[in-house]
Amino acid sequence: MKIMLLESLRYDVLRANHEIARRGLAPHTFGNASGVDRTGTQSLIVIKPSGVDYATMTPADLVVTDLDGNIVEGKLRPSSDLDTHTFLYREFPQIGGIVHTHSEFATSWAQAGRAIPCLGTTHADYFHGPVPVTEPLSAEEVAEAYVRNTGSVIARLFKQQQLDPIAVPGVLVAGHAPFAWGKTPAEAVEHADVLEYIARLAFRSMLLGASEAGIPKHVSEHHYQRKHGPKATYGQR
Amino acid sequence: MKIMLLESLRYDVLRANHEIARRGLAPHTFGNASGVDRTGTQSLIVIKPSGVDYATMTPADLVVTDLDGNIVEGKLRPSSDLDTHTFLYREFPQIGGIVHTHSEFATSWAQAGRAIPCLGTTHADYFHGPVPVTEPLSAEEVAEAYVRNTGSVIARLFKQQQLDPIAVPGVLVAGHAPFAWGKTPAEAVEHADVLEYIARLAFRSMLLGASEAGIPKHVSEHHYQRKHGPKATYGQR
Amino acid sequence: MKIMLLESLRYDVLRANHEIARRGLAPHTFGNASGVDRTGTQSLIVIKPSGVDYATMTPADLVVTDLDGNIVEGKLRPSSDLDTHTFLYREFPQIGGIVHTHSEFATSWAQAGRAIPCLGTTHADYFHGPVPVTEPLSAEEVAEAYVRNTGSVIARLFKQQQLDPIAVPGVLVAGHAPFAWGKTPAEAVEHADVLEYIARLAFRSMLLGASEAGIPKHVSEHHYQRKHGPKATYGQR
Amino acid sequence: MKIMLLESLRYDVLRANHEIARRGLAPHTFGNASGVDRTGTQSLIVIKPSGVDYATMTPADLVVTDLDGNIVEGKLRPSSDLDTHTFLYREFPQIGGIVHTHSEFATSWAQAGRAIPCLGTTHADYFHGPVPVTEPLSAEEVAEAYVRNTGSVIARLFKQQQLDPIAVPGVLVAGHAPFAWGKTPAEAVEHADVLEYIARLAFRSMLLGASEAGIPKHVSEHHYQRKHGPKATYGQR
Repeated sequence: MKIMLLESLRYDVLRANHEIARRGLAPHTFGNASGVDRTGTQSLIVIKPSGVDYATMTPADLVVTDLDGNIVEGKLRPSSDLDTHTFLYREFPQIGGIVHTHSEFATSWAQAGRAIPCLGTTHADYFHGPVPVTEPLSAEEVAEAYVRNTGSVIARLFKQQQLDPIAVPGVLVAGHAPFAWGKTPAEAVEHADVLEYIARLAFRSMLLGASEAGIPKHVSEHHYQRKHGPKATYGQR
Repeated sequence: MKIMLLESLRYDVLRANHEIARRGLAPHTFGNASGVDRTGTQSLIVIKPSGVDYATMTPADLVVTDLDGNIVEGKLRPSSDLDTHTFLYREFPQIGGIVHTHSEFATSWAQAGRAIPCLGTTHADYFHGPVPVTEPLSAEEVAEAYVRNTGSVIARLFKQQQLDPIAVPGVLVAGHAPFAWGKTPAEAVEHADVLEYIARLAFRSMLLGASEAGIPKHVSEHHYQRKHGPKATYGQR
Repeated sequence: MKIMLLESLRYDVLRANHEIARRGLAPHTFGNASGVDRTGTQSLIVIKPSGVDYATMTPADLVVTDLDGNIVEGKLRPSSDLDTHTFLYREFPQIGGIVHTHSEFATSWAQAGRAIPCLGTTHADYFHGPVPVTEPLSAEEVAEAYVRNTGSVIARLFKQQQLDPIAVPGVLVAGHAPFAWGKTPAEAVEHADVLEYIARLAFRSMLLGASEAGIPKHVSEHHYQRKHGPKATYGQR
Repeated sequence: MKIMLLESLRYDVLRANHEIARRGLAPHTFGNASGVDRTGTQSLIVIKPSGVDYATMTPADLVVTDLDGNIVEGKLRPSSDLDTHTFLYREFPQIGGIVHTHSEFATSWAQAGRAIPCLGTTHADYFHGPVPVTEPLSAEEVAEAYVRNTGSVIARLFKQQQLDPIAVPGVLVAGHAPFAWGKTPAEAVEHADVLEYIARLAFRSMLLGASEAGIPKHVSEHHYQRKHGPKATYGQR
């Protein structure tokens, strides 16, 4: 049974990695997707190998690790961002997939160190409030454990601002790029793609003079709830 | 006879929905097209179902409602924006098709809460004057009936500014996105596409310092009349 | 013999019209190409018909006129911009093809009423000095003969600024869009495409703070001469 | 043996030229790639011919020269930028391939005469510090030997700023466009492509208010070293 579950998760993670490339979210090999299986006695992560081209990647190339990043199966090195993924899976037990990209507009906001204000309903349908941006890592954090501490600054930000990772399914790491997540790898890549789109919209709106304050709370709240609240009216569910 | 008419309209509405996707006007499932048949004793609307992928949609997936939004035929839920469409069909008896998108540049203007000034002849050929922008909905309007009141703020704007919906075949809903319309679903999607194009042009022109005042009235008037006036010289009619 | 020449020119003009579409220079049917045959006793122009889709246009759809715009052959209406083309062919005897587009960035500059300064060698390789912009047409010029007077303001500008239409193979019509030309229809469309590219480059450079003065004269002059001067070193000629 | 080596290098250079086109880095024929073989008694350069279309170029079209630009083999004229390539190969003995493009955003920075600050880890992974920009060539340098002196201002800049061409694998030539290089032609085109991408990111980040200072040294240093330092952890090496 365990083997079947991982086969299925491998497929989902492979597909999420292919979607990163297909949607143009990560030129070259800048980007990676992972998923977690929390059903067994030991939770297991499936993640992209490091520096492998999306076009040629196979399910067997994916690497399986435990929640501490110890390799359980796989011949290739895992993504160099593994320790950020494991940190987030430990901190956010609600999530089942993570996608990291260097997508063009979201990365531009991350490089500017600015949160993306909620300027419209496209944003409000997916993110409950602004897309937050982390603080830069300190010299000590970089020296000690750069990749793990990238997860740490994200988790700290969500704690400080009391954000729910299901309601705010992504973040900008200052001077770096976005991370997005969801209940599954497929949802994570969907959120990474929407994040890029709202980053594009907000970039243009800001240049046209939009107010940082964004849309009124009564509108954003309505949109978020109509898609995610208990009385959701969107889609065929 | 009625059945044939609706079959034909279903085809037109399906095609308009496909055009939304093909022209890149609405990533994901952000967007919808509808059409109305006003020839029978009861006017009937054909509209996209909610949250269904453009690629797999069939004529049978489309939903038929009356002008008040009561479902007459269809197994799927109608677009969550249905009440905006019905409101506009009731208010603007001249129009036969409506297209809603979240297209990139038009939405950026909507998010900035700015009307698109008429800066050139590309604009003047299709829109008689600026592309107007609504006021934001009040908290009361959102609470009472958000989707219907989106139609209501559009209709109010056209009344206040004494705009003819045939001469100004689209609008920006502040903090949301554009709606466009026309005599048919095909014309509506054409107008949605042109609206996106003039939004792109105007965005760049404004950054280059164009004046909000736009082109002289004698030029815009000439262009609009040569395409739409009684002595139109454009095309093969 | 005459018939053969026009067959060949029809083919060149058709191809230039297809290139406008293929290179994305004119969405919808915003755009047109023409060519002139000056070898006969009477010069003849071949031009795109009005409002016909690029995808379905055939050689037989093209319209043949004399230099005054009188139709010599063709069942369809000629492009509504015909009188601009004929005016330019009369004023600029050196040119053999004209292309009008509403390409995205060149049109944005035209709408802002700004000439494109020569900011780099990409520009200098093709345009000798800035891409000039016309004055807006006066109310009288619009009322009298809008399309012909579009040609008139272009010709007046070139006369006032003493520009050589071979060295400056294009112009921005204020509040409208670009016209480009060349010795042949193929060269005209190449110039229209380069004009769009340098408009894109210059737009970004200006936002990054480039000086309106542009590159030093000794650089632009060198580049223009190495491609077009008597000692040209570029290409395989 | 020599012939085989050049056959292989010809293939690499042809492929790099095709990649320039495939990645959209140089519209028209603006751009060229070359490689050098330093294994023989005489170093030999393989370079693109001038003004030939990427789509139809064959290995036999490529031109072979010595390090002083004297043609050793080839029926076509070499790229008009040959003397810049030869100058750089003489000055930077570590490099094996050079790619010149007029890619859209990198050229926009070059036209603005601005170095691209290191605003994020995408940049830091490939370039150790800002992407530098040269001074404009003086009138004397243009008159004396424009193309060779383009190489000269690049080399002078690297000497003055004490830059290592392996750690900073590209440059912006003011008022012109980028040059990138690497240990092989394939690496050179990869660097040209990354340079374009970071130019896009930085353009948007600057408009969003990013500080020219860029990311903290401890972050950029960490990223550069993890990819290029002796303890590199990226990829499968």
